[in-house]
Amino acid sequence: MSKPRKQLKLGALLHGVGGNPAMWRHPDVQPDASVNFELYKQWAQKAEAGKLDLIFIADGLYINEKSIPHFQNRFEPISLLSALASVTKNIGLVGTLSTSYSEPFTVARQFGSLDVLSGGRAGWNIVTSPLEGSALNYGKKEHPEHDLRYRIATEYLDVTRGLWDSWEDDAFVRDKATGVFFDPAKVHALNHEGEFFSVKGPLNIARSKQGRPVIFQAGSSEVGKNYAAKEADAIFTGHETIEDAIAFYQDVKARAVSFGRSADDVLVFPGIGPIIGATAEEAERKYQEVANLVTIETALNYLGRFFEHHDFSQYPLDEPFPDLGDLGRNSFQSGTDKIKRDAKERNLTLRQVAIQSATPRSKFIGTPEQVADILEEWFVRGAADGFMLAESVPNGLTDFVDLVVPILQERGLFRTEYESGTLRGNLGLAIPANRYAKEEASI
Amino acid sequence: MSKPRKQLKLGALLHGVGGNPAMWRHPDVQPDASVNFELYKQWAQKAEAGKLDLIFIADGLYINEKSIPHFQNRFEPISLLSALASVTKNIGLVGTLSTSYSEPFTVARQFGSLDVLSGGRAGWNIVTSPLEGSALNYGKKEHPEHDLRYRIATEYLDVTRGLWDSWEDDAFVRDKATGVFFDPAKVHALNHEGEFFSVKGPLNIARSKQGRPVIFQAGSSEVGKNYAAKEADAIFTGHETIEDAIAFYQDVKARAVSFGRSADDVLVFPGIGPIIGATAEEAERKYQEVANLVTIETALNYLGRFFEHHDFSQYPLDEPFPDLGDLGRNSFQSGTDKIKRDAKERNLTLRQVAIQSATPRSKFIGTPEQVADILEEWFVRGAADGFMLAESVPNGLTDFVDLVVPILQERGLFRTEYESGTLRGNLGLAIPANRYAKEEASI
Repeated sequence: MSKPRKQLKLGALLHGVGGNPAMWRHPDVQPDASVNFELYKQWAQKAEAGKLDLIFIADGLYINEKSIPHFQNRFEPISLLSALASVTKNIGLVGTLSTSYSEPFTVARQFGSLDVLSGGRAGWNIVTSPLEGSALNYGKKEHPEHDLRYRIATEYLDVTRGLWDSWEDDAFVRDKATGVFFDPAKVHALNHEGEFFSVKGPLNIARSKQGRPVIFQAGSSEVGKNYAAKEADAIFTGHETIEDAIAFYQDVKARAVSFGRSADDVLVFPGIGPIIGATAEEAERKYQEVANLVTIETALNYLGRFFEHHDFSQYPLDEPFPDLGDLGRNSFQSGTDKIKRDAKERNLTLRQVAIQSATPRSKFIGTPEQVADILEEWFVRGAADGFMLAESVPNGLTDFVDLVVPILQERGLFRTEYESGTLRGNLGLAIPANRYAKEEASI
Repeated sequence: MSKPRKQLKLGALLHGVGGNPAMWRHPDVQPDASVNFELYKQWAQKAEAGKLDLIFIADGLYINEKSIPHFQNRFEPISLLSALASVTKNIGLVGTLSTSYSEPFTVARQFGSLDVLSGGRAGWNIVTSPLEGSALNYGKKEHPEHDLRYRIATEYLDVTRGLWDSWEDDAFVRDKATGVFFDPAKVHALNHEGEFFSVKGPLNIARSKQGRPVIFQAGSSEVGKNYAAKEADAIFTGHETIEDAIAFYQDVKARAVSFGRSADDVLVFPGIGPIIGATAEEAERKYQEVANLVTIETALNYLGRFFEHHDFSQYPLDEPFPDLGDLGRNSFQSGTDKIKRDAKERNLTLRQVAIQSATPRSKFIGTPEQVADILEEWFVRGAADGFMLAESVPNGLTDFVDLVVPILQERGLFRTEYESGTLRGNLGLAIPANRYAKEEASI
């Protein structure tokens, strides 16, 4: 196979004791992983040794007794990513933070500060908070409805970007002889007065080497896809089949173009949970080991979380998936729509839906060569610009870095050295112009 | 001198290009220090090499063109302290965060996360935000008035402490055989419904090795002193004379006792800016070098910030300090009261007040032995439990660690090795009981 010109991108979702609700029970998993900094440090350094583009820390703002173990007790993303920044050199540091329960001035500062102290490696995964309970932790009577959350997020990001541009790149003169620390003509108060936010500025931190943090987004609803296509640098998504992935890829790229952007301005990262064995059978055995740890009660709880913590134990397990009406549309809209649609089309029982949801069998399973083949197919056929790796079995990241990355490198599909010290540089994204500097240039 | 039983505590205020508005102009100062992570790392590691108890990162939420250089462009405390956590081992990590412009659920998480990932080394300096302009960055029509800010802060801290106690220390069973991850009887929703906050909980991170972050407070107004004496583990203060410091020390200790606490439950840390020379003359020369960098315009701006960015250039410089009425009482109340009182009592001109405010001549000046003598006197006479070191001349921290710390150690006044891996442990503060575990114990 000739060396492809374009290379794929890779991120690692660091998920503590795992997104699988029972993976912590596996003998090879440290059950305190979600609050074990040494482990996160090892994972981040392993990912960096594999020349991965980024690590990704997900988040949530509400737990109850049915939440999965990883969510009960875990690090907060800004603090965790900052701590990882000083023990890594090149890898991107991406974290989730909600626009529904935070203030843009604080969030612009925190991501701006992470971006500067890491030398331009920060990324922000914008979420609007799917869980209704989040409102109760923030003194709100109710969780804003789905589309309103996206309207808030749109204004929020505009404010944040404006704050990040407060200081032009050459604003700091720092002339000891004259005593001029900065050029007042190159600092800009935002003076934003909008529907949801009123923020004066300027921000008290200037831009990093990469201009501003990379924006990730994971919405897959109509509103979510438009938001991502218009605003995001990268989209974190998930698909069962390559056909679905290609359709999604083409859809969001077309939307990006319709918003006046280049298709290359927004990178699509399907999330995958590779399972690697010396043989295909060993890989299958690894999957079964984890799947067997999930009890039906655990699976029902896990499923329930997507539907506003709905109690699924009230339904018979082996009858068709119940009719839930609109339940779930105001939380994980695209996800719950898909679960309902699949259950209907494939005539699945509640038990089948619950188990499949709690321990999905990865399509990226097999020997290192087989997994590399699937990745290459997805990449070459236009289903992905890169992949976000989740641990669906213990030591999944280590196996991937040690066994699959060298194959991808040999095929010319993945870097052998970082191209840049910044996340934008490694992702091949341009440094965004400062909104104020641009205006001056056009005069 | 016989070895004293009790040892003093030391913190280092890391202040980038300096609290002095012109120190960045000194040839020995890196003028980008406030956004230079490598420098902060060196300082933190130097402080740790000197066995200091903690580093301290101040903060602010509003800048304008008259703010001092250090404030214009600097790291945000949570991200900076987290990044320093992973490149240090024993030193405490204390940062400022305002209760007037943040949400307790987020702040409890971020400090809780820093506390866990640092192995129990976090501290939170609670401020209520003195600057009126902060409101404009947070969509608020007006800055809450001084006493209201403290009422908010009181409820805020109660909520935060409740959230930190969400999980009892033995709540996480993590029994792989039975599949029990936590004991539901040992997790507690806060269900707080108060005057300012409504927060359900539980928090999604458990307590650290030190129980919860150490609480610092710096208020010196009547309301501020009561708040600190009732709620804080440590008070950051500032005094011109040992007599003032002793009076303050006795005052807050008595207040603490009146609130049912032990006098040892709250540690008093005067902030000092030691200036160390091989001779007393060299030390004096170092002070003059920095003082000479401050122009009268810079000094007037600096003074103005304490009075709600009042424009002092409208007054004659060499006439008595102007009558400002209540101006400044809603920002830095105790500080502005003191400036007015001093100016009146000592019949100072505006020029004198401005210069003294911008480059105060440290009382802790001289040879290493002389500075150690003054520290010992303050400590032994009951003016301080420890000191917070600020850089009032370049390389002040390095000089202190290299030259003064060994003398203090030799006199038995300061540790030669960390007693503990946690900040509470090193400060000699007890691990606070979990409010829920205590209730159970008393049944």
